[in-house]
Amino acid sequence: MAIMVDEAFAWSLLEAAREQAEKSWSEGGIPIGAALADSTGHIVARGHNLRVQTDDPTAHAEMVCIRNAGRRRDWDRLVMATTLSPCAMCSGTTCLLGIGHVVIGENRTFSGAEHWLAEHDIETTILDDPACVALMERMQREKPDLWMEDIGQ
Amino acid sequence: MAIMVDEAFAWSLLEAAREQAEKSWSEGGIPIGAALADSTGHIVARGHNLRVQTDDPTAHAEMVCIRNAGRRRDWDRLVMATTLSPCAMCSGTTCLLGIGHVVIGENRTFSGAEHWLAEHDIETTILDDPACVALMERMQREKPDLWMEDIGQ
Repeated sequence: MAIMVDEAFAWSLLEAAREQAEKSWSEGGIPIGAALADSTGHIVARGHNLRVQTDDPTAHAEMVCIRNAGRRRDWDRLVMATTLSPCAMCSGTTCLLGIGHVVIGENRTFSGAEHWLAEHDIETTILDDPACVALMERMQREKPDLWMEDIGQ
Repeated sequence: MAIMVDEAFAWSLLEAAREQAEKSWSEGGIPIGAALADSTGHIVARGHNLRVQTDDPTAHAEMVCIRNAGRRRDWDRLVMATTLSPCAMCSGTTCLLGIGHVVIGENRTFSGAEHWLAEHDIETTILDDPACVALMERMQREKPDLWMEDIGQ
């Protein structure tokens, strides 16, 4: 079941994800964040990349956000915002759970596995947010090696 | 870079994965296990499903095994064995990291996203192990709801 979201909803949820990304950067971590909300806009979980903070190679923002949401059966009625195009791991997880809609901050600095979301009929909204692009450009400039590790290269 | 493994290597690593699956079942958890080894057969990490044990929806066996392996850059020189065909999340993660080879205990009781592994030129060996099939059939018979939750249904 796909969920449709309007632009105001998408930007509002992305803002919560961006706050998570800024929090991670302020901790010395990778500046990618995510947030999950129900269809009323109520945020049920937040998360940011924790690879640096916890040495966990699976701790991408979306994964941490989903972990924080815990065990539930309403994934298809939730919307996830992420500051960056979801990688193969995070896209695969989104497909497994059948999350209802994914709001993507930007996919200029990195293009993940969005085609897998399409394969699974998961709707996406790409906001092409300059603030999200700036987060990634700063990291790729200041910590290129960390970024290569994060995407398995 | 794809790694080739011989049959003895594959069965030996699968045995370590199956021990993990049995351990999880004995704890009341989902009986799926995984193990990661280098090309000499040295096991660098083990893991089993922890959804029941820790309420973490991302804690599939392969994910826990990869978490236990920590931050490293030699994924393409590692072989992962898993007792069951890897789902979309675990296949996506395997693609992201570029793990060198995946040994699959069985894909009769559940068929995951093996086509994504092929898309990423990741070699697989499917052992069609009756002991792995028996693990899953027992769980699907005794705890069907838990199984449906685990695969996002």
